[in-house]
Amino acid sequence: MLLLESKRKEVPMPVPELRVIPVTGVPEVKEGDDVGRLLAEAAARQGTPLQTGDVLVVTQKIVSKAEGCVVRLDSVTPSEFAIALAKQWEKDPRQVEVVLRESKRIVRMDRGVIITETKHGFICANSGVDASNIADMDSVSLLPADPDASARGIRQSVQQHANADVAVLISDSFGRPWRMGITNVAIGVAGMDPLRDERGKQDAYGRLLQTTMVALADELVSAMDLVSQKANNIPAGVVRGFPYERTEGSGRALLRDAATDLFR
Amino acid sequence: MLLLESKRKEVPMPVPELRVIPVTGVPEVKEGDDVGRLLAEAAARQGTPLQTGDVLVVTQKIVSKAEGCVVRLDSVTPSEFAIALAKQWEKDPRQVEVVLRESKRIVRMDRGVIITETKHGFICANSGVDASNIADMDSVSLLPADPDASARGIRQSVQQHANADVAVLISDSFGRPWRMGITNVAIGVAGMDPLRDERGKQDAYGRLLQTTMVALADELVSAMDLVSQKANNIPAGVVRGFPYERTEGSGRALLRDAATDLFR
Repeated sequence: MLLLESKRKEVPMPVPELRVIPVTGVPEVKEGDDVGRLLAEAAARQGTPLQTGDVLVVTQKIVSKAEGCVVRLDSVTPSEFAIALAKQWEKDPRQVEVVLRESKRIVRMDRGVIITETKHGFICANSGVDASNIADMDSVSLLPADPDASARGIRQSVQQHANADVAVLISDSFGRPWRMGITNVAIGVAGMDPLRDERGKQDAYGRLLQTTMVALADELVSAMDLVSQKANNIPAGVVRGFPYERTEGSGRALLRDAATDLFR
Repeated sequence: MLLLESKRKEVPMPVPELRVIPVTGVPEVKEGDDVGRLLAEAAARQGTPLQTGDVLVVTQKIVSKAEGCVVRLDSVTPSEFAIALAKQWEKDPRQVEVVLRESKRIVRMDRGVIITETKHGFICANSGVDASNIADMDSVSLLPADPDASARGIRQSVQQHANADVAVLISDSFGRPWRMGITNVAIGVAGMDPLRDERGKQDAYGRLLQTTMVALADELVSAMDLVSQKANNIPAGVVRGFPYERTEGSGRALLRDAATDLFR
């Protein structure tokens, strides 16, 4: 013990910086693909193999593609309601129909934008239904049915193919009230606590902190979005050097209960 | 030109990663201090001098301290309204008075939490009035009066003391509707466009992107919060390697106009 302690003193304190590393060279993802394996292989190919302790952020789109959460619009029969809505805003009634099917309730609807609460409980535009970055021009992607399960599956696959114990966050970009612009949020979580509970902790002067919870997972996926933006919408990235509490975790922990939500 | 081009081809494509570097060893900030200079010096001392192209994220608290945006509670006479509110929730009526004075309107009020719209137009808890991390236990800090001006001042000072053209973002942590946990947001901006406008851009398959604006500044300050969390609430950090559009910029661009806000 004594030896260890004296050694510790000699080590210069490094600046505890983070790295945010895009995973480039990921092939086009198709239904049935093993996303964890594809990402582990792509990260290794680019010289930055996944490591234990990494936070691997995976954008929703490739997860949905791999899970077959893609709907061909010619298979959709729109309801009267969807047809009426679509007509009002010059939209594709089949796409509106899919948005409605993916929603639990409509939060607001105006100027052609439909804000819904999805089956999962997310509040976002168009139930997360998205036509961008899909090869088939007549298809739309849905959010994964169970993003936590998706994250767990990718985590297990990375464990197997990269021999690394990583946390996995599935990200999507949502608009938000009060502020302009979309930001990335974590819709699925595996292997970490997405929140840091500061309650009961003290500030530098011994005063109890008023702040309660920090949404670490949302900040992590936002950091990854910066490299995605930079590298032409690459589908995944790694935050390396961020210590987190290893638990099973769930994206549901990030959903604020309506009864305690003073911001909405 | 030909030579340059052939040289360019020989350079292996590096993975375009980001670094998020905390600025450690910043001394206790006092009224009148030059924050830009303190940060430039601290960054140099730790071996990571500020560089042109860096995004320097500065937490609101040290900016407020330097600008004297700190109120001694024994100088505050609470109104009848503040006294009544404070009594209901066992709060300090003087602190409630300061919250009210800093607000333009009260958005919601329940269970001892006051969500206000600040004079600047930010929607946050307690008008951003905060008692944590202030040496004087009987004082509270306010948000800077003009966070964009604060950011511009720090930027100029960094230019002078580190000879580096950086963008500066002033950050604070706000709660938000729908989702649990606070995240960092940019309240002041200098030297960059806080939003990336994707309208009119195409996806990988040539389809027009539906998404309009990405709130880069909020994602940048969220990335910095991760190192702040990690390094015991250090007051500033640098995002290095993120290309941005250099313009004057303003945090006001991140405020969503009520008339077009379907999320609230």
